[in-house]
Parts: sequence; C-alpha cells; structure tokens
Amino acid sequence: VLHRITAIVGTTAPREGEIFIGDDAAVLQGFAGQAIISTDVCVYGVHLDRDLFSLEDLGFKAVTSALSDLAAMGALPRGIVIGVSAPAGTDMEALHRGVSLASTLCDAPVVGGDLTSGVDISIAVTVFGECPGGGAVLRSGARPGDGIYVTAPLGRAAAGLRLARSGVSLDDELVLAQRRPWPRLREGLALRGAGVSAMMDLSDGLSTDLHRLADASQVGFALTSVPVATGATLEEALNGGEDYELLLTTSDEARLLLVCADRNVPAPIRVGTITSDVTSRTLDGDVLRRGGWEHRL
Amino acid sequence: VLHRITAIVGTTAPREGEIFIGDDAAVLQGFAGQAIISTDVCVYGVHLDRDLFSLEDLGFKAVTSALSDLAAMGALPRGIVIGVSAPAGTDMEALHRGVSLASTLCDAPVVGGDLTSGVDISIAVTVFGECPGGGAVLRSGARPGDGIYVTAPLGRAAAGLRLARSGVSLDDELVLAQRRPWPRLREGLALRGAGVSAMMDLSDGLSTDLHRLADASQVGFALTSVPVATGATLEEALNGGEDYELLLTTSDEARLLLVCADRNVPAPIRVGTITSDVTSRTLDGDVLRRGGWEHRL
Repeated sequence: VLHRITAIVGTTAPREGEIFIGDDAAVLQGFAGQAIISTDVCVYGVHLDRDLFSLEDLGFKAVTSALSDLAAMGALPRGIVIGVSAPAGTDMEALHRGVSLASTLCDAPVVGGDLTSGVDISIAVTVFGECPGGGAVLRSGARPGDGIYVTAPLGRAAAGLRLARSGVSLDDELVLAQRRPWPRLREGLALRGAGVSAMMDLSDGLSTDLHRLADASQVGFALTSVPVATGATLEEALNGGEDYELLLTTSDEARLLLVCADRNVPAPIRVGTITSDVTSRTLDGDVLRRGGWEHRL
Repeated sequence: VLHRITAIVGTTAPREGEIFIGDDAAVLQGFAGQAIISTDVCVYGVHLDRDLFSLEDLGFKAVTSALSDLAAMGALPRGIVIGVSAPAGTDMEALHRGVSLASTLCDAPVVGGDLTSGVDISIAVTVFGECPGGGAVLRSGARPGDGIYVTAPLGRAAAGLRLARSGVSLDDELVLAQRRPWPRLREGLALRGAGVSAMMDLSDGLSTDLHRLADASQVGFALTSVPVATGATLEEALNGGEDYELLLTTSDEARLLLVCADRNVPAPIRVGTITSDVTSRTLDGDVLRRGGWEHRL
C-alpha cells in the first residue's frame, strides 16, 4: 500500500539536495525568511458528508483548505506532510489521488507522510511555506480607517452544499466550490506585496471571521456591503463557511489595486471600514453578531 | 476547550518575532540550514493499549516518538504542530498534558494545532527542526567496512510492554521505557558532529531497521553482537520495536568516541560491520531475516 501511495503522491521531484519520502524525515533546503507552518485535520463524515462526496474530494479539500492558511499569511508553499488514518478496505488510492491532484495544482509537494489504521477515515495535513522578501501578514495589523476587502463574492461553498444536498450534479460550479475549494495563494502573495495591514482566510464565514480579525487587531468595523456570489443567498455570503477567499485590510487602496493589476489577480472588493471602537461591529448600521459556523468541539 | 488546551500546551514563549498559536499559521524565524520535517499519527488502541496506558501516555509518546525522527537526522527541534481528533467526552486535558510535558522536556514548543471530533482518539504530530553547521545524516551513507553501532542496549520497550501486561507497576523502569520513550536528540546532534556515515532511529526493532539502513545504502552487514538491556530478552533486543535508540555507522571510531565524550553522551556500542555484498545479512554468521514488527496496514 505504501509503495502504491508513494507512487501516487510522490510525483514532484525534489530540488537539488532535498529528500522527500524514504528517510526518517524530509530534508528541505533553507527557507527564504520566515517559516510559516499550519496543520488541519479533516475527518470523513465530520468535515465532508460521506453520502455526497468522495474520498478523492476529501483528499483534495484537506490539502487545499490547509494551504489556504499559507495564502492567508502571504506565504509561498514549500511542501506538505500528510498523516492518514483509515480502516482496512478503505480506497486509499482515491484519497491519495485527491491529495496528489491538489498538491500538484498548488505546487506544494508531498514531502512525507504516515499511514495507520483506525475507525475514522481521517487526514491531518501540515503545510509549510516561506515569505520571500518580507514578513507574514498577521490578523492583528488592522488600524482604524483601513478599508476592509474580500478577494471575491462570497457564499459559493455554502450554496454548493445546499445544491449538492438537493441533488444537483457534482460538476455544478457551486458544488465544485464546496468539493474542491481553491486556496488563494497567488492572491495572498500579491496582497502581501501590496503591504496590506491584516489578512486571514474565510474558513468559517465573514460574520465569524471578521470578528476574529477585529479581535486580534483590537478594533471595530462598519460593514457596508456583502458581495453575494451568483447563485448564493445573502445569508450564505455572510454566514457560510469554507469559501477560502481572503479577508484583508489596507489604508492604501491605490497601491492595492495597482499591485493586483500588476500581478494579474482580481481586484479585491471593498466591504467596509475598520473603526476605532472595539465594541462597534456593524453591518449597515445594525449590530453584526458572530453568525458563522463555530467549531463544535 | 481550545482555550484550556492552549493554556496547557502553549507554555513556551515564542522567540522575538515569532508567533505560535492564534493566527492562521505559526510564524518562525528562518531555519539554520536545512529544514527537517516528519509526521507521525498515533491512534489510541492501535499504537498504545487502551487498557494499560493513559491518554497522558498517548500524548507524551506521540510527541517523543515523532521527535525521534529528528534525532535520527541529527536535527535540532524548532517546534511541533499537533492535530487531535477525539469523541466528545474525551479527557483532552490529560492528552495535552502529555503533549506539553514531552514538548517542554524536549525543548520543542507546540507552535500550532487543530482539534476535531471523531470516533478514534488520534493524534498527528508533525515535527520540524534544523541542522546548524551541516547537513542531515541519511540512512543511505553506510559504506563497506564501516562499524555499526547503537546508542544503548536494546529491548527495553518490548520488555516493558510484556511487564505491563503481566501487571507490573506503571512506574517500573522498563514499563516507563514503553510508556514514555525518549528521543535521542542530544545523541543525534553529537553523532552528526562526529561525522557518522548513516543514521536512523530504531522504531521497529534492530532486525527490521538494520535491513532498511542496508537497503538504503545498498550494502550488507555482519552483526556480531546484540546488546541486551537488563530485564529484556535477546528476542526483545533483536525484534522489539519502539526503543527509539539510534542506529549508526561510521568508519572513524576514534572520532566517534572522542566527540561523544566531549558532548557528554554515552559511547555508542559496536554491534557489527557493514559489508559490500548487499545479499549478505548475517548475525554471527547466520542469515538474519527481517524479524521486527511490520506496520500492519
């Protein structure tokens, strides 16, 4: 099994002097500047509906949702390691095809892994990257007066889940947004280059994640508009999770738009303004409560 | 739960400019030389007997067995991330107390983590470290004529498991070797400094792991002695897993002993010689088959 899996995920050749799978640990050449590291665990049936989505979806989504945390820092991926646990008889090749596809598309090679038996089908993905030319963008840098932006209209993943449950084809564009989310890595790099003051990824919904950014920055916010993706509802755009778009703030919109145009990434959409009163968190003047999905455990 | 766990595991202060838990990802200052990375998954009931050992043991052992892979490369730990999955009602604080104790004792801070619900109690530990002043020691560097060494007498963990099953106290020294294995990090650093030609950790037993080292180096071996720990049997020393001692080869025994004395680590014990015939793998002249524990999946 290990040999077959290695053949599936180990398709990216290491750089000169690097070693991926096969020794006690992977050996990578030095990182440019800071090392950025994050880990995510996805359990089939908890994070992804077993009746609607395949093991290939699980592998793909586990990798891209983890890489989204690198995008949120403005980091360039250097690699990932995966820890898989599954009962005997699980189609491990399907799971690892999803991992491999995501890894290849995102240019984030699988440099190591572990495989064990368990009752759950579970995959832990640890991602690591670097920030050449500068430091990572934190959640805590938003300042009063900064504009608040998102990288695209929201609610696609939540709409896709609703549609999948109603029997819409798995190849529907919104259903794909749920099954095969995409980390905004190119956007994150460009936005770091544009000197944005704070950034995070939208994993739990704007109405939850914007509170988190404001908490970390000790500021308030005035949301003035919520861009709703075609086919999604306002409620899905505001409270739906797993879009993995980026949420960011900056005081320099001109530079933001210039750098995004120069890097050929879509111009972020302004949704509001950071305010100084940490207790003032509004949407069109009304109090915006934390409404998104909260982790249950 | 997350706040309580963070209080337990987040006791090490980050270095200047570093961020551990709280943002989308951890931010570490640049690594000295290569970045060494490995991941291990431990499932309660698969890797550790639920009737004999506690969740604190699980957390401790998951961390130290993963760090052993850094020791095997001669790397210095920079940090770990943990992904925990468990059903509601699990004593998460006990699990994380074990993680925290191991992390503190090994000077490998927990810089991030994820927590989710599942049926299994499972912990994925990803470790990363650096190799200041030189490159990581691989399994593939053994050459004919090199001496083969281990860092201590073997079989303690297997003997400890046998004793625990027979009702011996959990505080027995050999039982502790099973419950609370210790990664040979100081030894690994010293041995890299001594210029050893190949190194790995003994996780599955000498009779399995020495074949792996010989396979990676494309050599044979002639084992001439197997140092048996007090209280263990020859069979446990040869085939028992989870000792996490280091297995190494070098052509320069004088330098090996000098550096180990200088670094105040015990002198490794010679167990045999590397030979050129890749098909010749012997113990006292008899063929030594792969006899250790093999992963079941």
